[in-house]
Amino acid sequence: MTNTVTINDVGPRDGLQNQPKILSPEERLQMIRALLAAGVTHIEVGSFVSPKAVPAMAGADRVVSGLSDQPSGYFTVLIPNLKGYELAREAGAKSVAMVLYGSEGMAQKNVNMGKHRAEEVTAAILEQASGDGIRVTATIAVAYECPFDGPTEPAEVQRIAAHFLDLGADEIAIADTIGAANPCQVRQLMDRLVERHGAEQLSCHFHDTRAMGLANVFAALESGIHKFDASIGGLGGCPFAPGATGNVATEDVVMMLHQMGYQTGIDLPALVRAAELAKSLTGTAPLGRSTPWLKRYLERTAA
Amino acid sequence: MTNTVTINDVGPRDGLQNQPKILSPEERLQMIRALLAAGVTHIEVGSFVSPKAVPAMAGADRVVSGLSDQPSGYFTVLIPNLKGYELAREAGAKSVAMVLYGSEGMAQKNVNMGKHRAEEVTAAILEQASGDGIRVTATIAVAYECPFDGPTEPAEVQRIAAHFLDLGADEIAIADTIGAANPCQVRQLMDRLVERHGAEQLSCHFHDTRAMGLANVFAALESGIHKFDASIGGLGGCPFAPGATGNVATEDVVMMLHQMGYQTGIDLPALVRAAELAKSLTGTAPLGRSTPWLKRYLERTAA
Repeated sequence: MTNTVTINDVGPRDGLQNQPKILSPEERLQMIRALLAAGVTHIEVGSFVSPKAVPAMAGADRVVSGLSDQPSGYFTVLIPNLKGYELAREAGAKSVAMVLYGSEGMAQKNVNMGKHRAEEVTAAILEQASGDGIRVTATIAVAYECPFDGPTEPAEVQRIAAHFLDLGADEIAIADTIGAANPCQVRQLMDRLVERHGAEQLSCHFHDTRAMGLANVFAALESGIHKFDASIGGLGGCPFAPGATGNVATEDVVMMLHQMGYQTGIDLPALVRAAELAKSLTGTAPLGRSTPWLKRYLERTAA
Repeated sequence: MTNTVTINDVGPRDGLQNQPKILSPEERLQMIRALLAAGVTHIEVGSFVSPKAVPAMAGADRVVSGLSDQPSGYFTVLIPNLKGYELAREAGAKSVAMVLYGSEGMAQKNVNMGKHRAEEVTAAILEQASGDGIRVTATIAVAYECPFDGPTEPAEVQRIAAHFLDLGADEIAIADTIGAANPCQVRQLMDRLVERHGAEQLSCHFHDTRAMGLANVFAALESGIHKFDASIGGLGGCPFAPGATGNVATEDVVMMLHQMGYQTGIDLPALVRAAELAKSLTGTAPLGRSTPWLKRYLERTAA
């Protein structure tokens, strides 16, 4: 069992796409550089979607090219379709994420195509990316519950994961898109997936809507998962929807991992500074739930 | 494996003892009755300590006698010593909790006696209580970490638990008094204790200071524990200490348990009303972290 956990910070993409304040590519680069300075190596830096649909992600090409001087970073961009893939490749992206769906309702709502069509498109992108030497993460959205269709059948998630690992996806991200999962469910699903495929190509993505984010991270760790999405400052969700909360905060996840003896390569004081930058840039980042304690702890240990 | 979990709400005692606003015995009874109305059967209703030291607990005898019409409740009072035991017995208490210490520093600070003296006193109380037909919970405070002495040796917690089960304690509560435990530690310690003693007489008490409260509850559940302390509205901690947070909120714990399919006998809408009463009475109850989601969920499912 490895003692190292990889954190993929999705703040600059998932965290920002629904914020009331739109950040410029330069501001997003500022956030990303603060993450890099904290030792975060994997970052979701933007998405190649229509700027009309998602104005917060306009100028993703400038973000990607702005990072060309960074040799160590592992920068992923989200793409909705083959056109997005081509734009990402042209911008110089070396890693893309494509979203698959545990439910039909979410697929229709999110990309206006059926879940099976999304799978066909992803299969075509995988073939293309293989020739282009571009890494592909297949994210399975609403892997536990869909706001439109209700609970997601674990067998369906297992089918999609097996199919896309067969097709050559580099990573399958199991996403609790709306923060509905409980740790029993996570443990059961991830146990099954790890038993079948090993943990190396699997990652987990949790939101903290029902306050179970860290419990779910722990449950997945117990199943053997050692890669997690998290969002700096807990950015994410929709600030217009009362009670909707964001991704599990990177600083909470890293704090918990370090306390349990896992290594992440991340410097917590610098991560807290990155979270504060995210808060000052967006005005809405809630910050991690452990932040009041974490700041006092860091002050004490620095003294 | 049982599917039923017992919640012991410590809000009226642990939750209130450090609040800036002191509630009258009548107000505390109002809180307790709201918990009973929600189906909470186990409640820590007060403590028989010096009203000079802890003015918030003054009139504990009136709280206990005010509940004499409640046949179903399981009401525990905290006692610091033999005098407290006698006062509790005179007031009609049928269940008392005595605090033991994982560290010397906390014992000195909290009750101004050494940990071994606290053990002698508890042993004497156990003998007395056995004759009086009064139930005794031995709470092991700072079972994971002490703010004065640092990490607590798990072997020391195991020694105390084994000793007091031998002496006839009805229950051993393993308390993460300052909210320092992480779920790996919880899993390890509770696995060892359950392996040795079974889960029947063990319970866990968590604070949410580092946002790991629910993760710790899940870890303990996996070890087989099925009794937890929690505090209505997340009451507890010290509101004067920046960043200090309270006990894990009863509404968060019950929400998570129900989502995982456990039965608690508690009605969530009524529990949320009890939390709101706690907030309106104290002015400081933070409410559970899942409250924004929980309220929308309850509204939706009631419609």
